[in-house]
Amino acid sequence: MRKGLFITFEGLDGTGKTTQIMELEKKLQQLNLSYITTREPGGTPIAEKIREIILDPENTEMSSQTEALLYAASRAQHVSETISPALQNNQVVICDRYFDSTLAYQGYARELTLEALYQMNEFAMQGIKPDLTFLLDTDTQAASGRMHDKQMDRLDLEADFFKKRVRAGFLKIADFEKERIKVINAALSVEQIHEAVWDYTKEALQNKGLV
Amino acid sequence: MRKGLFITFEGLDGTGKTTQIMELEKKLQQLNLSYITTREPGGTPIAEKIREIILDPENTEMSSQTEALLYAASRAQHVSETISPALQNNQVVICDRYFDSTLAYQGYARELTLEALYQMNEFAMQGIKPDLTFLLDTDTQAASGRMHDKQMDRLDLEADFFKKRVRAGFLKIADFEKERIKVINAALSVEQIHEAVWDYTKEALQNKGLV
Repeated sequence: MRKGLFITFEGLDGTGKTTQIMELEKKLQQLNLSYITTREPGGTPIAEKIREIILDPENTEMSSQTEALLYAASRAQHVSETISPALQNNQVVICDRYFDSTLAYQGYARELTLEALYQMNEFAMQGIKPDLTFLLDTDTQAASGRMHDKQMDRLDLEADFFKKRVRAGFLKIADFEKERIKVINAALSVEQIHEAVWDYTKEALQNKGLV
Repeated sequence: MRKGLFITFEGLDGTGKTTQIMELEKKLQQLNLSYITTREPGGTPIAEKIREIILDPENTEMSSQTEALLYAASRAQHVSETISPALQNNQVVICDRYFDSTLAYQGYARELTLEALYQMNEFAMQGIKPDLTFLLDTDTQAASGRMHDKQMDRLDLEADFFKKRVRAGFLKIADFEKERIKVINAALSVEQIHEAVWDYTKEALQNKGLV
């Protein structure tokens, strides 16, 4: 069994991932557990530089293939420099988005071949997969409603049509991996969602002998 | 048969690729043939930004996986924005480095799995492969000798040991694809090399009905 506990949060922008990550952090702090919080794309200086290229609104000419490969490159660096060392150090790793986002956005929504995405990401992840994933799910209009005070980047400008495809993709992925991926209704209150997140996390921490 | 003619130059830095590309350009100009010259990594604004990350000497923490994926991302953009449109326009495309460099540097020299490199690059290249490739080959000390007045980047700092592996990799690749890849002794004079390059190019232009 791999050391540490690797938790990812997935879902459309605006579904409350950041809030839930902060709630989970508070709980881990109370328990004096060693953890790191990180995000994709990004998480290391090199990966952040790659993130800038991906999200720059000026890069309208970017092909879907280029985008998918940049996400994989950013992930490779993130895994080797941040995630893998923390897990080896027996820490909890909380990550905002990971490979499921690639499958949902580039695969199901942009219709790139799932096989090619799996292949390049197996190469990037070097066997490091999440133990537990929370998919914050809500209908796309509710998700957009929470976005009004955030600066819009290139991906935010995608049509609502695209978001619907992403959401459907996430739900398909969750259906394939029911054991790992917990679908949580993002329309619930912050407290209700946190309670569900914490129940699953506590169980996983116990299974790993971390509490 | 695909339109246009796609020519790549491969070999270690310092083997005279740039000089030979300029000589070939002069000849195409004399014949009034429509052509573009480009390079990898780079060749479009987005690909040039990716190139900066790859070659930045500060990025010493970059993993081999990240590097390979960034090269593939740069190539995907280069193919979709530059190479493919030029070929569809029936032009000659001259490119300084392409997929053979990935195989030689990341595959044979850094020992990443060749299969993974093939997979991510098939995805990046979208079926666009060179019609003709010139491999300028010389022993690694001769190649280094020509580098004295060029600013050293991260890749240049690799040991001579690494260059020997790259050279051996290029020769293996050429051995697998004798029809496409012409190995030319880079120790010959500029004129002698150009003559060989031009003989092969002329034949390829004739076969494509471009002259």
